[in-house]
Amino acid sequence: MLRQLEEEKVFKDPVHNSIYVQDATIWGLINTPEFQRLRRIRQLGTSYLTFHGAEHSRFSHSLGVYEITRKIISQFERNRYNDWPQEEKLVSLCASLLHDVGHGPFSHSIEQVFDTDHEVWTCDIILGDTGVNRILKEVDPQFPSMVAAVIRKTYDKPIVISLVSSQMDADRMDYLLRDAYFTGVHYGTFDLDRILRVLRPYKGRIVVKESGMHAVEDYLMSRYQMYWQIYFHPVTRSSEILLRQIFRRAGELHREGYRFGFMLPPLEQLLSGTIAVEGYLALDEAMAQTAFGQWMHERDPLLADLCRRFLNRRLYKYVPLEQPDETLAEDLKAQWRSIGLDPNYYLEMDTPTDLPYDVYKPGAAPDASDKPPVLVLDAKERLTEISLKSDIVRSIAGLHTGKYYIYYPDDLVRPHASRLKPAARELLGL
Amino acid sequence: MLRQLEEEKVFKDPVHNSIYVQDATIWGLINTPEFQRLRRIRQLGTSYLTFHGAEHSRFSHSLGVYEITRKIISQFERNRYNDWPQEEKLVSLCASLLHDVGHGPFSHSIEQVFDTDHEVWTCDIILGDTGVNRILKEVDPQFPSMVAAVIRKTYDKPIVISLVSSQMDADRMDYLLRDAYFTGVHYGTFDLDRILRVLRPYKGRIVVKESGMHAVEDYLMSRYQMYWQIYFHPVTRSSEILLRQIFRRAGELHREGYRFGFMLPPLEQLLSGTIAVEGYLALDEAMAQTAFGQWMHERDPLLADLCRRFLNRRLYKYVPLEQPDETLAEDLKAQWRSIGLDPNYYLEMDTPTDLPYDVYKPGAAPDASDKPPVLVLDAKERLTEISLKSDIVRSIAGLHTGKYYIYYPDDLVRPHASRLKPAARELLGL
Amino acid sequence: MLRQLEEEKVFKDPVHNSIYVQDATIWGLINTPEFQRLRRIRQLGTSYLTFHGAEHSRFSHSLGVYEITRKIISQFERNRYNDWPQEEKLVSLCASLLHDVGHGPFSHSIEQVFDTDHEVWTCDIILGDTGVNRILKEVDPQFPSMVAAVIRKTYDKPIVISLVSSQMDADRMDYLLRDAYFTGVHYGTFDLDRILRVLRPYKGRIVVKESGMHAVEDYLMSRYQMYWQIYFHPVTRSSEILLRQIFRRAGELHREGYRFGFMLPPLEQLLSGTIAVEGYLALDEAMAQTAFGQWMHERDPLLADLCRRFLNRRLYKYVPLEQPDETLAEDLKAQWRSIGLDPNYYLEMDTPTDLPYDVYKPGAAPDASDKPPVLVLDAKERLTEISLKSDIVRSIAGLHTGKYYIYYPDDLVRPHASRLKPAARELLGL
Amino acid sequence: MLRQLEEEKVFKDPVHNSIYVQDATIWGLINTPEFQRLRRIRQLGTSYLTFHGAEHSRFSHSLGVYEITRKIISQFERNRYNDWPQEEKLVSLCASLLHDVGHGPFSHSIEQVFDTDHEVWTCDIILGDTGVNRILKEVDPQFPSMVAAVIRKTYDKPIVISLVSSQMDADRMDYLLRDAYFTGVHYGTFDLDRILRVLRPYKGRIVVKESGMHAVEDYLMSRYQMYWQIYFHPVTRSSEILLRQIFRRAGELHREGYRFGFMLPPLEQLLSGTIAVEGYLALDEAMAQTAFGQWMHERDPLLADLCRRFLNRRLYKYVPLEQPDETLAEDLKAQWRSIGLDPNYYLEMDTPTDLPYDVYKPGAAPDASDKPPVLVLDAKERLTEISLKSDIVRSIAGLHTGKYYIYYPDDLVRPHASRLKPAARELLGL
Repeated sequence: MLRQLEEEKVFKDPVHNSIYVQDATIWGLINTPEFQRLRRIRQLGTSYLTFHGAEHSRFSHSLGVYEITRKIISQFERNRYNDWPQEEKLVSLCASLLHDVGHGPFSHSIEQVFDTDHEVWTCDIILGDTGVNRILKEVDPQFPSMVAAVIRKTYDKPIVISLVSSQMDADRMDYLLRDAYFTGVHYGTFDLDRILRVLRPYKGRIVVKESGMHAVEDYLMSRYQMYWQIYFHPVTRSSEILLRQIFRRAGELHREGYRFGFMLPPLEQLLSGTIAVEGYLALDEAMAQTAFGQWMHERDPLLADLCRRFLNRRLYKYVPLEQPDETLAEDLKAQWRSIGLDPNYYLEMDTPTDLPYDVYKPGAAPDASDKPPVLVLDAKERLTEISLKSDIVRSIAGLHTGKYYIYYPDDLVRPHASRLKPAARELLGL
Repeated sequence: MLRQLEEEKVFKDPVHNSIYVQDATIWGLINTPEFQRLRRIRQLGTSYLTFHGAEHSRFSHSLGVYEITRKIISQFERNRYNDWPQEEKLVSLCASLLHDVGHGPFSHSIEQVFDTDHEVWTCDIILGDTGVNRILKEVDPQFPSMVAAVIRKTYDKPIVISLVSSQMDADRMDYLLRDAYFTGVHYGTFDLDRILRVLRPYKGRIVVKESGMHAVEDYLMSRYQMYWQIYFHPVTRSSEILLRQIFRRAGELHREGYRFGFMLPPLEQLLSGTIAVEGYLALDEAMAQTAFGQWMHERDPLLADLCRRFLNRRLYKYVPLEQPDETLAEDLKAQWRSIGLDPNYYLEMDTPTDLPYDVYKPGAAPDASDKPPVLVLDAKERLTEISLKSDIVRSIAGLHTGKYYIYYPDDLVRPHASRLKPAARELLGL
Repeated sequence: MLRQLEEEKVFKDPVHNSIYVQDATIWGLINTPEFQRLRRIRQLGTSYLTFHGAEHSRFSHSLGVYEITRKIISQFERNRYNDWPQEEKLVSLCASLLHDVGHGPFSHSIEQVFDTDHEVWTCDIILGDTGVNRILKEVDPQFPSMVAAVIRKTYDKPIVISLVSSQMDADRMDYLLRDAYFTGVHYGTFDLDRILRVLRPYKGRIVVKESGMHAVEDYLMSRYQMYWQIYFHPVTRSSEILLRQIFRRAGELHREGYRFGFMLPPLEQLLSGTIAVEGYLALDEAMAQTAFGQWMHERDPLLADLCRRFLNRRLYKYVPLEQPDETLAEDLKAQWRSIGLDPNYYLEMDTPTDLPYDVYKPGAAPDASDKPPVLVLDAKERLTEISLKSDIVRSIAGLHTGKYYIYYPDDLVRPHASRLKPAARELLGL
Repeated sequence: MLRQLEEEKVFKDPVHNSIYVQDATIWGLINTPEFQRLRRIRQLGTSYLTFHGAEHSRFSHSLGVYEITRKIISQFERNRYNDWPQEEKLVSLCASLLHDVGHGPFSHSIEQVFDTDHEVWTCDIILGDTGVNRILKEVDPQFPSMVAAVIRKTYDKPIVISLVSSQMDADRMDYLLRDAYFTGVHYGTFDLDRILRVLRPYKGRIVVKESGMHAVEDYLMSRYQMYWQIYFHPVTRSSEILLRQIFRRAGELHREGYRFGFMLPPLEQLLSGTIAVEGYLALDEAMAQTAFGQWMHERDPLLADLCRRFLNRRLYKYVPLEQPDETLAEDLKAQWRSIGLDPNYYLEMDTPTDLPYDVYKPGAAPDASDKPPVLVLDAKERLTEISLKSDIVRSIAGLHTGKYYIYYPDDLVRPHASRLKPAARELLGL
């Protein structure tokens, strides 16, 4: 199935130094419009508003995931492990490369507001009338379905699913290193080489040799640190809230029959819930930002204000809460209304668990969406879930240190401070 | 003039680790819409199509230039050099921070096609009705003019101009390090700390102590390597050519009265040469890319084809030439026409000197645009231009190793190969 | 008290990039024979036999500790914290620079065998007839006593002691970063800049601002990883055991009146317990290794064998035990004797707590030798010990994951395997 | 010939991250006493007195050279180049690993004073009664001779010699990167991965593909910078002079029949020119430093003074000269005598060419000791020496910017300044 390129292609990559492409199918996929579109979608959504270096795209990350997968398989081949089915190489590489091809602009916010799912889009793109589909079909007419099955976790070789999607898969390893590199923090750094060396295929799964325990602990600590320092940073949360409010408001206006001063078909399809693959592929962060730029001048003052805030980075202020408090929330909403602010848009309480990242789940739960945990293989060929062996991992896995925050536009509230109750004033530092 | 912030603000930066803001004016400038807009303009234009990591913005770079300037001044203050006028600190920091605020989307291409100049725009933004102007006026009503004068190199304290703009200024130092970091190449790395340590103010200029000669050589070698490896990379050139063709074609169509399926006011003003500050500030790379995405569906096949090529990265192929050859060019154009291709758009010869980068100019020439050369101060307080002291610098400064290339769409030419002359076929490898 | 050098001296350092010396006293101390001697004593003892890069000396580390202390004080000065007594700068810098000047060759082993203490030697060198003492006395006749008091933790300004010696002092910060750099592992990396920024003097102690909690967690995790990956590595332990046996055997022979083929006065003084400052300063790792090289040819077969093993890196093999087991130990000793091996030298059980490193101790215990714990200062100026605030730190602080090992010379035991009991054979894999 | 180890051995290395040993012969060689002895010999001689981080040993470097060679061969194998003779792998790896095994303590100084040659010692160790010889003979009785032939450049497969020893061999690549890492300078950094990728075997030589030209330029620039910044640093030269004077004085005293207070057989054999392999292998830097430490107390005031200077780092001062000047030298010598200083020991003029490093020699000269130059292979399979293609390389290759210096003990000369001639006083800044 592999068709070797006459000459290996090499991408210069700041995280892995070089990314090597030896197969014509991989090369073909990278050059499809659908994959090139990932250059216009940022890997970390709005994090660039907190960490200005975080401007890297899902294109770079997808190449990185491919490269790590390639290295893992190459290690398996070098060690001639019997438990690795060699004929699964291409499907594994393709699934790794394409796993994020269904992401849209500011995916997480869009998925929440419009209830879509990038994994479903990934499969639609792989199976639909696209460049990606045509390249995959050149391998075999059934090949697109095979790749989609890996993404959906229904592929009949569980080891391939374990390779592409687990608690320590190429996806996570690349994004931790990459996000650390581009934000400039140290937390995400762990010894990738060492981890790649201690992985091995074993009875249908990818497991970790016991000698690699500490390296895995280090990886999970990196994940823990990145989770709290980067992914859950309250400034990033604040900008995501704005984004969500923009999409919600635009959807509301659309449902009300409002005539937008600026609109493009893919956006309209998104707002009306009629979007299909072709329209989805035309959506990117350039289009979203252009729309926001135009909507700054809409007649609807709410939409205009939200867009101005996002583009000019006048974010909502945040104030930590000891715990979620429904009574307080209701009380604040009432006060918001009393000073003429719509609490549906100008007040938000945030629970950090509502995010596409997690620290580590031992994952005994039968939830199908759970990624398989890390299993350690000892000298006597016994498998143990890592948190049973490592105090550090156990302590991380159980942590729920997420803070609760209230977000609101300080510049709109502050002028009316005197009309708020004393408790609210104290809470908000007014 | 300095108004210290109650608490120092710190940006996490992958190149300088941290960027420190201690002054309220600087903090105010960073938060203006005009400065935030730089987040939507890439530092390296189309280089991300060659080096996928190069997705960093002019926002990051501008902060970096500010930080290096801050460090240089701080070193001068620590050493209590008499030749440094302490009262010039704020104007120097503001000019450093704002020096690129007038850049537009894909600046270099736009400047070539529409004959504009980002330095002029920078001054227009500083002096016009903008957030930047308002913040600067809070310092003093004359302060915007002072900052603009530094940018224009007419400020009456030459040492400030020398600090902000020279052959070894904070601008270049930041972009070499930053571009190296984000592309992932090693070439741009030099010892910034050491260079900062050997700079000193001397009789109205910033000069280098002789003990720092080798560090400066190393910096200039980095520049030489980056120049050829990154800035002049033929793939990047190829994508710039496409971009230029898009803008040229759109302008041509506009002049002909063509009705665009998609248009926005700032774009129209750009095409018609009527753009002013407000419109210019609305232009960014998101808008340009959105326009290209829409223009892929224009009736004009040329514009549609060029836009598709750019967004989907179907770049022109390039073939090196031994030397520029006008006869060959004319001959190829004729052959292009004979196979039905417009040579104005589908054939380009490229001379690398046509770029906003240079390696190093000793700069005896009285050309006002030339940046002052690097002067070395020896133990006996004699100043010497560095290329007179360093064989390495002399050899770099004189090099003209730029290659000439022909660029063209291989996929459109190849089907007609049999109708081309044998010499052309050999040249193009058909 | 500070006497500024005419020109700042700069050391190139791979960890801190540059180390700056501005004061003549510091410069003088660095140039004493006693401080230069630290170049001949490795920072990590025998770790270079496990990690070949770990060949760095206590000289480099001592400069690094000085530099971090200098940066902390400089931050305090910049922020003009009232709680920092400015007149304590020089004594703090000197104590930081000199804190390890009393280390001998392979200190930890020597201290165990000969019951000496490098901290006592440090004070003896500071107060004795040495170059260090002469330089310090130039500041003030009482100055040596002041520096020694800081080392002894009896200085009357507790904040200076807190700066120089605590659970997060300059000593630990430098060695974690430096040992990680030279061994080449990633574990020891943490964000030093960030930690330096969140420290502040507060009521006689150095505390951490709450905003720096995660950075401190990261630092403590680095410490945890380095502890297990580097400092307690069983191969390093194995070589330390050999070293200890060499010194023990030489001491035993000396007591028995054995005539050594090679001996030097400082070594003899060490063996006989009569060593004083002058002799101690003549001891270094070069002398120790030279002695071992000569003792390879001693008539005493035990000493000769141990020295050969150490120099040629024929280390003892190690086998992990579930737990310490006195009965097993006695049983093995008997078997050792039965095959003609002296269990006092050829068998060792090892408990990892017996080492000069620890992970983190909240330190409520009144043990005077305990270093003060990390205190977090929140917005309401409350101080809390960090393990009360951080689940991660709490989980690290309580961990006792040290393994027990048996060490023995496999090459001497294996030929007699058949004469060992089956249980011993299984344990040792024979 | 290759005997694969059951399990690959991995060394953690700060420069290459990991070093992989897959072959039992290599593993055996690393564990010989002769190879382990390299741990006690510094890679950069006295450079640690200038750059305190430069304490790394020839052991680390030798492993690094082996690893680079292994990677090059592995690339050749992966690309299935016909011009690479696969059966030469083991001899190439062994020669790379062992190429420095004949180095003695402070080799360069010893070779100059006692007219020995480390390459000859390397062959003697390979062919003599040593552990290295025994391991090599296990492969084949002729194998030691084959490895020695590669070292001597008389092996009958020139491509193996070209791999192990050329202007861009694994030896230089490792030491540039390693010396840069440990000193902490940036100059030596180049893109090793990229260079390894552009090497290929071609008609009995290792050549560079044209696409790698700039990477090679970058490597040669690194070499140029390291040459002047590190290897020729005048402080390092100053300490080498001291070392040479110590050995010269000791030799002189020995010839005069002086009775040393401290002496060891290998040192005596070195001084008397009777040293053979066994004695040479007992020499290391620990022994040299121990001798210097003891000789500080010798009756001969000259030897005692030189040793004290070296160990306590009281180096000779240096003053640059415009050019070598024999008359000046004679004149100074006379003045030295007039103030009671022996000019043979207390005055030295230094020509930098006298060193085991060079920048780059195109090397047309038939001098057998010259290493083969770098050859570039273009698309038309033409080979060109790189300086003919690259202006940068040409300019570096021709440079002779080495400065001349006078070295002398300032503390001994200064008290007699008034008795020196005015010209001498001015020259020496007295």
